[in-house]
Parts: sequence; structure tokens; C-alpha cells
Amino acid sequence: MSEPDTLTVTAAALAIGDELLSGRTKDKNIGHLAEMLTAAGIALEEVRIVPDDQQRIVEALDALRTRYDYVFTSGGIGPTHDDITADAVAAAFGVPCDHDSDALALLGAHYAERGLEFTPARQRMARMPLGSRHIDNPVSRAPGFIIGNVHVMAGVPSVFQAMLDNVLPTLKTGTKLLSEKVSCPFGEGDIGDPLSLIAKAHPDVNIGSYPRFSGAGFSTEIVIRGRERDLIEAARRDIEAMLASVAQKLGTAAV
Amino acid sequence: MSEPDTLTVTAAALAIGDELLSGRTKDKNIGHLAEMLTAAGIALEEVRIVPDDQQRIVEALDALRTRYDYVFTSGGIGPTHDDITADAVAAAFGVPCDHDSDALALLGAHYAERGLEFTPARQRMARMPLGSRHIDNPVSRAPGFIIGNVHVMAGVPSVFQAMLDNVLPTLKTGTKLLSEKVSCPFGEGDIGDPLSLIAKAHPDVNIGSYPRFSGAGFSTEIVIRGRERDLIEAARRDIEAMLASVAQKLGTAAV
Repeated sequence: MSEPDTLTVTAAALAIGDELLSGRTKDKNIGHLAEMLTAAGIALEEVRIVPDDQQRIVEALDALRTRYDYVFTSGGIGPTHDDITADAVAAAFGVPCDHDSDALALLGAHYAERGLEFTPARQRMARMPLGSRHIDNPVSRAPGFIIGNVHVMAGVPSVFQAMLDNVLPTLKTGTKLLSEKVSCPFGEGDIGDPLSLIAKAHPDVNIGSYPRFSGAGFSTEIVIRGRERDLIEAARRDIEAMLASVAQKLGTAAV
Repeated sequence: MSEPDTLTVTAAALAIGDELLSGRTKDKNIGHLAEMLTAAGIALEEVRIVPDDQQRIVEALDALRTRYDYVFTSGGIGPTHDDITADAVAAAFGVPCDHDSDALALLGAHYAERGLEFTPARQRMARMPLGSRHIDNPVSRAPGFIIGNVHVMAGVPSVFQAMLDNVLPTLKTGTKLLSEKVSCPFGEGDIGDPLSLIAKAHPDVNIGSYPRFSGAGFSTEIVIRGRERDLIEAARRDIEAMLASVAQKLGTAAV
């Protein structure tokens, strides 16, 4: 699928937190990130979730940051003892993790304005790997940070989303993946064989088939993805002709 | 945290599918699996999401199955050309992937009963690595399978959940992790320092701190996890005393 005139930019996500692995918290950031990156023309190619454990974070981060153009992390940058992401990222990059003077100034002013004590815990949120750039946090001020190709963001979804909005315009993006959906009232079992032939006949697009189950039976959503509109349209025409022929064969009773 | 009289059983999840990485589908299986495993006394320690790509699936599977007691996969075992999980799992184990005669019989009878043609696509759902055992699928019949320590299940949440219900009673389980929640009306910035001291004073429990953001500000949920009830209670008493002291210090205005 890679043609000389298309550019692929890749990314991975690393969600950090014991609470995601215990089931206490259901992750909401991965799906949002996936949607936003896809819309921007960046291909999310891998996701990992690891616990609040420095060695596990470093290991995952090193595997991902060497393989993909960008890595986006979520979680573990708050003020409490179990927030160890900044230290882990610094360890992965082999640089010290310390209070960043700009972040201290920003947060100091923020808490002074609100008449709140700038506790050591709150100061902890100004810690980041040496050489990081800030990611602005319009929601609750404490910045995320960027080091190398790694973007470190908060786990709280509203903060994660606000940080991502700030980061996205700064990223290089690839050729956008276009997609088209075809709804199919038949189950995959009825269309799998002819759809497989169509997929083979259209090697420059990716044809995905997604079953939906209702109590009554399966239906299917077919998604055609590619970087050229006319190739997608050609596949769509073949799929629609195929569905008409399956409908004729099965009558209206089949699902 | 590992004491001589406790047993830890570990697991990883591998969710497979382009649609999860494009954002088209929001995963619902990981959170459910996490909750069910935790309740059963099995520690979910890592999650990965990879595309429908044999090499990526094999790589992730090999990394996870050698490291954890159990691996649970979701997705890619349907009847269409983009369902390649069975082949990838077989490749990881170095065994052939072929139609399983019991699964063919089961599915053949199922479609005959419903008056539906047993198409090659539907027969495809009977393919599994040589030597696999079935995971019963009461929802739509096509079985999942177990090979080695890897449990291969469907991506459709209702089918995944039904398969997991069948698998859970067959697993060895560890000492159950107990947990207790303490709701805290203050943000992490106000409790981070004393909570860190409490965490150090109670090394045999794990104290997690989870911020919640409403428009008005942050509050915190504190979760104490451990394998002995009295150690959890001791930490809880210290946390409640700390919260009372923070409340006194801040008055009622602070959040």
C-alpha cells in the first residue's frame, strides 16, 4: 500500500497506570487518540498499557520510541507518590529528572492566584526530564512535556484531550487515509468468500469487515481504506455488486 | 508485596484489529477482562493492541506468552479474509493451522439447523492451530481456542464475554487482591505529601491516588490494595486521620 507519492507517519500510544490494568478505570484516551491521529493523517500502529512501574515503562517506551515516529503517553504525571512517569521517561532517555524552572514559575503563579499553598506535591508536577519542552495544559495548568519523539500527557481525559489539541498542529502528518463504509445486512459467513476475492482484486486498498451482533443475528460493516479516492470507489462498486448478488441468492430471509 | 504465603498469577491481553487503531471501534474487551481477572485473583500486567498483521501479532504474542502465565487475545477469528489471528497464533507456536474436525462438525450442524449454506467463509471459523482445545461460544457457535497458555477469543464484546465466562473457571488463580476506596474531597496537590509518607509507612499495601476533575476543581479517589485485610485497614485509618487533618488545615473552602 505504500506508493512513492504517499508519506506514512506512524505513532504508538503508551497508557500508564495500575488502575487501567485492575479494571478500576476504563481507558478513554486510546480511542480518542486513535480517532484524532487517523483524522490528522498519522497511523497509530501499536498501543501498550503498563503498570506504574519504572522498569516496565522504560522497556515499553524504548521499544516504541525506536520503532515509531511518535509516541504518546497518558497518565502518571500528577502530584502523588504513584505518579512516576516523568522519572521513567527521564530514565529511558538517560537524562536527569528535576523541577523545571518555567514550570515552577507557571504553577507557582497559578496556585498563588488561587490562594493555595504551593506544596511539594504540587511542585512535583513541575518535574520533567532535562531538555523537555512543555505541552500547555489549559484545564489545570500543570504542563505535559515533549522529549525526543515522546509526548507525555495526563491521564485525566479532559486534560489529555486538551493537551492533544495543543500537540496535534505541531506534528508532521502523512498522506491522509481515506475511508468509505458500506453497510451490509448479511453476516460475514455469507459474504466472506466473495469479499475475499474482491480484496485480492483491489490490492491497493485495505478492506475491513466488522461483524455486528444483535440478538437476531449478525450483520456486517465493510470499511474500505486507502489513500486514493478512485481506487476506493472502484472497490466500493465491486462490493455493492457483490452484495446485490448475495441478496438475490439468499432472498430476503437470510441474515 | 510478594509474601511467602501469597501466590501471584499473571496475565496479559492482546487486542487485535486495525479498527481499534483507526479509532473506528472503541475497545470494550480490555476493561472487562481487567475487571474479571482482578476479581478472580489474576493480575493483568500488560496490554497490547496490534493491527491485523501476522508479523506484529506473532511478535507481540511471543513477548507476552513467555512472560506471563496467561495471554488472552480478542479479535480476528471471524470468517473473512482480514481475520488472520488463527494463522498468526499457529505461526507463533510453529504448528500448522487447519480446519479442526470437531469445529467443522459443530458449525456444520449449526448452519444446517438454520438452513444456511456452510460456505468456505463459515468453514474458515473452524480453522485453528493443531492441538488447540475449543472455547465454547454459546452466542454464535464458532469456538475460540486455547493453545499453550494462550486463549484466543472473539472481538465482538458479547461473544468475548461469553467465552471468558467459560474460560475463567478453568484457570489457576492467585491470592485475591483486596481493595478499599477512600473518597477525598481535596485535590492531589493538597494530600500528595502526607499521602506519600503514609505510602512509605505501609510498604505491604499499594496506595493509588486517582484525580477526578469537575469544572470546579479536582477531587481524589484513594485506593488501597493488598492481600491482607488488616494491613489495608491500618493504612485506611492513617489516611482518614490525614484527611481530617488536611480538612482542618484548609477549612472547607479548599478543593
